[in-house]
Amino acid sequence: MSCATGYERAFLDWLESPSAPLHRQAVVEAESRQQQLTKPVGALGDLERLAIRLAGMQGKPCPQAERVAIAVFAADHGVAAEGVSAYPQAVTAQMIANFANGGAAISVAARALDARLRVYNLGTVTELAPLPGVESCVIAPQSGNLACEPAMTPAQLARAMAVGRQAVIQASADQPLDLFIGGEMGIGNTTSATALAAALLEQPAVTLAGPGTGLDSAGILHKVAVIERALALHQPRVEQPLELLRCLGGFEIAALCGAYLHCGQQGVPVLVDGFICTVAAMIACRLQPQLSDWLIFSHCSAEPGYAQLLDNLPSWPLLDLGLRLGEGSGAAVAVPLIRMACTLHAQMATFDEAAVSGATA
Amino acid sequence: MSCATGYERAFLDWLESPSAPLHRQAVVEAESRQQQLTKPVGALGDLERLAIRLAGMQGKPCPQAERVAIAVFAADHGVAAEGVSAYPQAVTAQMIANFANGGAAISVAARALDARLRVYNLGTVTELAPLPGVESCVIAPQSGNLACEPAMTPAQLARAMAVGRQAVIQASADQPLDLFIGGEMGIGNTTSATALAAALLEQPAVTLAGPGTGLDSAGILHKVAVIERALALHQPRVEQPLELLRCLGGFEIAALCGAYLHCGQQGVPVLVDGFICTVAAMIACRLQPQLSDWLIFSHCSAEPGYAQLLDNLPSWPLLDLGLRLGEGSGAAVAVPLIRMACTLHAQMATFDEAAVSGATA
Repeated sequence: MSCATGYERAFLDWLESPSAPLHRQAVVEAESRQQQLTKPVGALGDLERLAIRLAGMQGKPCPQAERVAIAVFAADHGVAAEGVSAYPQAVTAQMIANFANGGAAISVAARALDARLRVYNLGTVTELAPLPGVESCVIAPQSGNLACEPAMTPAQLARAMAVGRQAVIQASADQPLDLFIGGEMGIGNTTSATALAAALLEQPAVTLAGPGTGLDSAGILHKVAVIERALALHQPRVEQPLELLRCLGGFEIAALCGAYLHCGQQGVPVLVDGFICTVAAMIACRLQPQLSDWLIFSHCSAEPGYAQLLDNLPSWPLLDLGLRLGEGSGAAVAVPLIRMACTLHAQMATFDEAAVSGATA
Repeated sequence: MSCATGYERAFLDWLESPSAPLHRQAVVEAESRQQQLTKPVGALGDLERLAIRLAGMQGKPCPQAERVAIAVFAADHGVAAEGVSAYPQAVTAQMIANFANGGAAISVAARALDARLRVYNLGTVTELAPLPGVESCVIAPQSGNLACEPAMTPAQLARAMAVGRQAVIQASADQPLDLFIGGEMGIGNTTSATALAAALLEQPAVTLAGPGTGLDSAGILHKVAVIERALALHQPRVEQPLELLRCLGGFEIAALCGAYLHCGQQGVPVLVDGFICTVAAMIACRLQPQLSDWLIFSHCSAEPGYAQLLDNLPSWPLLDLGLRLGEGSGAAVAVPLIRMACTLHAQMATFDEAAVSGATA
């Protein structure tokens, strides 16, 4: 990072560890098993590919997706002052409480999946009392307003990314993980993610900006103007991904980026949620291109910018259900599909076992 | 049916009962609930629409998809003699045994979903001894070769459709059903379904025919020629859906059609599988247009003809995973999504309950 001092450098050293290699032998074995199952080869489409990919990540010819951890990173954004959201900034803290109380979409989904949910509060404008299941990792009440200043100082960026790393360590300490899901909450954070996407893809903001939580068309145009102001101010350069993240990101986006990087380093498969998480994942992949081996994209977000990201993803998302909630909810919704892919892969009979004739053609 | 005698007429009288009406009040209540849940309105996309549709079908503001029955209809096709499949005809009977023994994809999926699976054997060239979970409803060893003769006599059509109706009655006798899934197995049945689709859509066979279980391009061209021969022979007319089904269908496709019609009559929500099931559902909708209210389409089949069906469906399929296995497997894979839609709808907190601020815009 161009502006990192020695102090932050030490904090960021861990970023340079490469992603773990995949287990090639498990891939070969899983591919061979798929050829023998009682169905035309390829007839289970993406479910076959999923089982094979996951075999390579987990080093097991029959992988599983039972032990799932969900970490939701929440933070307020200084850019909310520009009026870029349909909701008041107080909602970030209110939703953290809703996560803790079990009423948010991701809380309900986590229960349904029997997945462990932890929430990381990286800083909200409304102060929060301690809540069960919420880790207080407050960096500041909110990030800087990216339209006027960098969203983070170098030290804040380093701390936010370290929170993501810590979340992966914590989740893996509970149990060996089959799958890690990151989620986000932060009023104003589609503005930040859209600015990052514009910089990463070198596309004008107007081709990427969308309604977020529910802006009307005038609101979207205003959001575009705010993003353009930020891009003009910071002159972000795509070959400096950390600096992009620091100037245009937010605490929770930086935490997601750190979490994904550490998943790759630890060999933990990642299920990536929608627009904001995918932007964080793309930044992480710029830092460590091999990380893409560890990422499964869960769904096509309805946020219009996602369509622009699609062509730049290393693999296609599983679902396209018009979801645009965030919190990790779209990734959670995809978990049963991955479980089904693993169960079919492990439990279907082979042609030999079932005494079924193979193709004659 | 133009060719129905008095004898078959009696068998088919039940077809004329209309589909049950939806419960409008439950739709209104479910819509209102969705507006109050702690998320931007519409942010759960198709999952919201699913919960609302299912509420209308089940007459409950909070619907569920726990009690799922799967009926797989299997039968051999005379048209297999034309060499239109990559697999030998013996595979139909072998796969029925595989269903019974729990090794087929649909068997594995049914277990994973805790869904009741019953298989209906409508006739196979290889005779089958009694098997657990398999109902013997043999009409003939195989349907007529549709390239040379009608696939069914009027009496056979009536019996096959009645098997479908009976399957719904049997499934509902076990438990009140939240969701019915029909599946199919029959070597040669994409040829039959493609011929039906060509007749229904008034499209040339070449725009619809695909590899089925795995034909190469020469095999597909041969299949097109066989279908064209059948269409030239039977001169099917789109305004005579039962006659289409009789001439170009198969026992299991007719059973699916009967099952769907009876689900509509009984007010049982249907989750429709891929290409073959969707063709059966389209024929059923020609007979009873209101049936479409009761149909949820589960996935876009990878069989190329499905893309042509899409524009003619009353609602969009949930998944697009490149599946092309049949058996009801794609519908089964979609069940966890529907369950998740119901769970989110029922368990998420409202803005009031969670004390979260609403949109200011």
